[in-house]
Amino acid sequence: MNRSRVEAFSDGVFAIAITLLVLTIAQPTNYHALAHQLGQRWPSLAAYVVSFVVIGIEWVNHHTVFLHLQRIDRAMFYLNLALLMTIVFLPYPTEVFGEALVKGSDARTAAVFYSVVMTINACVWAVTWLYASMGRRLLTAEFPEAHRRMSTLLFTIGPLPYAIAIGLAFVNPYVCLGFHGLLALYYAFDPISQRLNRG
Amino acid sequence: MNRSRVEAFSDGVFAIAITLLVLTIAQPTNYHALAHQLGQRWPSLAAYVVSFVVIGIEWVNHHTVFLHLQRIDRAMFYLNLALLMTIVFLPYPTEVFGEALVKGSDARTAAVFYSVVMTINACVWAVTWLYASMGRRLLTAEFPEAHRRMSTLLFTIGPLPYAIAIGLAFVNPYVCLGFHGLLALYYAFDPISQRLNRG
Amino acid sequence: MNRSRVEAFSDGVFAIAITLLVLTIAQPTNYHALAHQLGQRWPSLAAYVVSFVVIGIEWVNHHTVFLHLQRIDRAMFYLNLALLMTIVFLPYPTEVFGEALVKGSDARTAAVFYSVVMTINACVWAVTWLYASMGRRLLTAEFPEAHRRMSTLLFTIGPLPYAIAIGLAFVNPYVCLGFHGLLALYYAFDPISQRLNRG
Amino acid sequence: MNRSRVEAFSDGVFAIAITLLVLTIAQPTNYHALAHQLGQRWPSLAAYVVSFVVIGIEWVNHHTVFLHLQRIDRAMFYLNLALLMTIVFLPYPTEVFGEALVKGSDARTAAVFYSVVMTINACVWAVTWLYASMGRRLLTAEFPEAHRRMSTLLFTIGPLPYAIAIGLAFVNPYVCLGFHGLLALYYAFDPISQRLNRG
Repeated sequence: MNRSRVEAFSDGVFAIAITLLVLTIAQPTNYHALAHQLGQRWPSLAAYVVSFVVIGIEWVNHHTVFLHLQRIDRAMFYLNLALLMTIVFLPYPTEVFGEALVKGSDARTAAVFYSVVMTINACVWAVTWLYASMGRRLLTAEFPEAHRRMSTLLFTIGPLPYAIAIGLAFVNPYVCLGFHGLLALYYAFDPISQRLNRG
Repeated sequence: MNRSRVEAFSDGVFAIAITLLVLTIAQPTNYHALAHQLGQRWPSLAAYVVSFVVIGIEWVNHHTVFLHLQRIDRAMFYLNLALLMTIVFLPYPTEVFGEALVKGSDARTAAVFYSVVMTINACVWAVTWLYASMGRRLLTAEFPEAHRRMSTLLFTIGPLPYAIAIGLAFVNPYVCLGFHGLLALYYAFDPISQRLNRG
Repeated sequence: MNRSRVEAFSDGVFAIAITLLVLTIAQPTNYHALAHQLGQRWPSLAAYVVSFVVIGIEWVNHHTVFLHLQRIDRAMFYLNLALLMTIVFLPYPTEVFGEALVKGSDARTAAVFYSVVMTINACVWAVTWLYASMGRRLLTAEFPEAHRRMSTLLFTIGPLPYAIAIGLAFVNPYVCLGFHGLLALYYAFDPISQRLNRG
Repeated sequence: MNRSRVEAFSDGVFAIAITLLVLTIAQPTNYHALAHQLGQRWPSLAAYVVSFVVIGIEWVNHHTVFLHLQRIDRAMFYLNLALLMTIVFLPYPTEVFGEALVKGSDARTAAVFYSVVMTINACVWAVTWLYASMGRRLLTAEFPEAHRRMSTLLFTIGPLPYAIAIGLAFVNPYVCLGFHGLLALYYAFDPISQRLNRG
C-alpha cells in the first residue's frame, strides 16, 4: 500500500475532524440575552480548545510515526483506520462534555466519557506502535534501536495519564478538563518526544 | 483527464464522508440521565463503526482499482462520480439505522434501507469495474489477465451478500447490522483480494 | 500565486461542498412511519443527485479551465474565490428546494431561488473566463485561438439555460428540477466541450 | 517538521472552515412564507460573504508567509495551530452575528463578539509573524530585510482596524459588518501587501 496516499487520506481526516470541532459549541437559543448566553458557553469553548490542541498533537505524532515506516501493510492500514475512528469520534464527547458543563448537570458522567474515549485512543496508539515496531516489522533501517525502545515505553504508558483523568472526573469535572489541557501542553513541549523527533 | 487529480478529489470526498459519520450519533437530549442516554446510543455507535470500516475498505478498493488504470475517460469520471454519490450518501442511512435501533421502532425498515443503499453501492462498483475492464478498456498493460477475470467475478457477485443482508433485515435488524459488520471484516482480511493486491 | 496550490485549495472546497450535500436531506422525524417518511423524501434525494452532478461537472470544468492557465494573478484568485463562494452556497438552496417539494408548500419560490443561485453561478463562471481569456491574459500559448472563441461563446451564453429554468420554476417546480437534471446530463455528455477538452 | 505537510494540513483546514460557513445560514422554519423568510435572511448571507472573503484572504496570507519560511520548528507549528484554531472558530461568530441581525435582537453584542474574534485572530497573526521573523529566525535568506520590517509593521498594527470595528459595533451592528466587508476588500486589493508579494 502506498504510504503517501495513506498519509494524505489520514491528513484529510485529521483536518476535517479538527474543523468539525467548531460545531460542538451550541448556538445561542435566546438572542435577547446573548451576552449572558455566550458567557455561559465558556466550558464548551474550553473543551473546543483542549480537543483542538489534542487533535493537532496527534497529527504531529501521526506524522512522526509514519515518517519512520518504510512500508504499510494491510494490518497497519486497519490499525490506522481504528486510530482515525477514535479521532473522528472526538467531537462527540467534546460536545457532550462542554454541554454538560454549561448545563451543570451530570458533568461527572460527561468527564468520565471524554476521558474514557481519550484512554481508548491512547490504547489504539499503543497497539499501532507495538504492531509497527515489534521486531522492527515496519520501521526504516535508519530508526535507532534506542529510540524504538524509548518510544515503545512511552506509547505503552500513554494510556496511564488518561486513566488518571478518569479518576479525576469523579473528583471534579473542571479539574478533569484542566488536566486534559495540561496533558496536551505537556505533549506539546514534551522534551523526550522532542529529542526523539530530532533523532 | 488527469488520473492523480481525480484520485485526489476522490480521496478528499472519502475523507470527508468518513468524518461526517460522527454527526450520525445523536447528542443526548437529557443531561440529567446522561449515562443512561449515552448507554442507549450503542446501536448508533455500532452503526458508526460498521460504516466507518465500510468506507475505509472502499477507499482501499478505490485506491487499488485506480492503480491499475492507465487513463480515465469521461464515462469513467461519471461512473466514479456515481460511486462517490453512493458513498457520500452513506451517513444518511447510517443515522437512520442507528436512530431506529435506539428508538426501537421500525428498525426493520431502517435495516432494509441501509442494506438497499449498500446493495446499490455494490452494483455501481460492479458497473464501474466492468466498464473499466471489459476489453481491458482502461487497464494498464501490466495488469494480469487472470486477475482481471477473477476481479470481474468478485465485483459481479459483490451485490449478492448485500442482497442477503436485505433478507436478514426482515428477520432481525440487529442480525442485519452484525452481518454488515462481518462482511466488512471479511473484506478487510479477504485472502482473494489480498492476493490480487499483491499481484 | 502558485497555480497548483490554488487548485489544491479549490479541489478541497469542491470535495467538501459536494459531501455536505448529504446533510440537505432531512432526517425522519417520526420513526413509527419510517418507510412512509423515507418515501416522502424523494424530492430531497432528487435535489441531492442533481446538485451532486452539478458540482461534479463544475469540478471538471474548473479542472479544464485551470489546465489552460499559465499563471494566476490576484484578480483571478478573487474571481476564483467568488466562484467557490457560489458553489459552497449550493447546499443551501438544494436543501430549501428539496424540503419545499417534500412539504409541498411554496415549492415555486424554492425552485426560483435554486435557479437564481445557479444563474449567478453561471454568470461568475462567464466573468471568470472572460477575465482569464480576454486578450489571452492568463492563457497558455498552446491554447488554440479557435477554442478560445468557442469557449467565450459557450461561457457567455452559459447563464441563459438557467434563466430559462427560472421561468420554468413559475410553471412547475418539478419540471424545473427535471430541467436542471437534464442540463447536468447535457453538460456531462456535451459534444462541444468534449471536443474542446480533447483540443 | 516538514513544511509542505504542514501547509497541506493547513490548506485542508482552511478549505473546510470556508465551506462550513454555508451551515451558518439558518434554514427557513416556515415554508408557507418562504420568499419572506429567505428575504429576511440577507444579513446571514452578508455575514457569510464577509467571512468567506476573510478566510480566503487569510489563506493567501498564510500561503505567502509560509513561502518565505525555510523551516518550521515546534513553536511555529503550535502558533500555526493557534492561528487555525481562531480561523476554524470563525463560523461560530458568523452564525451568531447573522442570526442576531435577522432576529433584530442584541445585534450589538453579536457585532462586538464577531469583532473581538477577528481582533484575536489578528493578534495571533502578529505573534506568529513576530516569532517567525524576529532575528530572521525562520525566514529564508532571500526574503529582503526591507520587506521584513514593513511586514512586521503591518502585522503589528493589524489588530488595530478590528479594534476599531469593536467600537463601531457599539454604534451600529450593520455599520460594523459593512466595515468588516470594507476591510476585507482593502486587504484584497491592498497595494502594500501586493508589492510585498511581488518582492
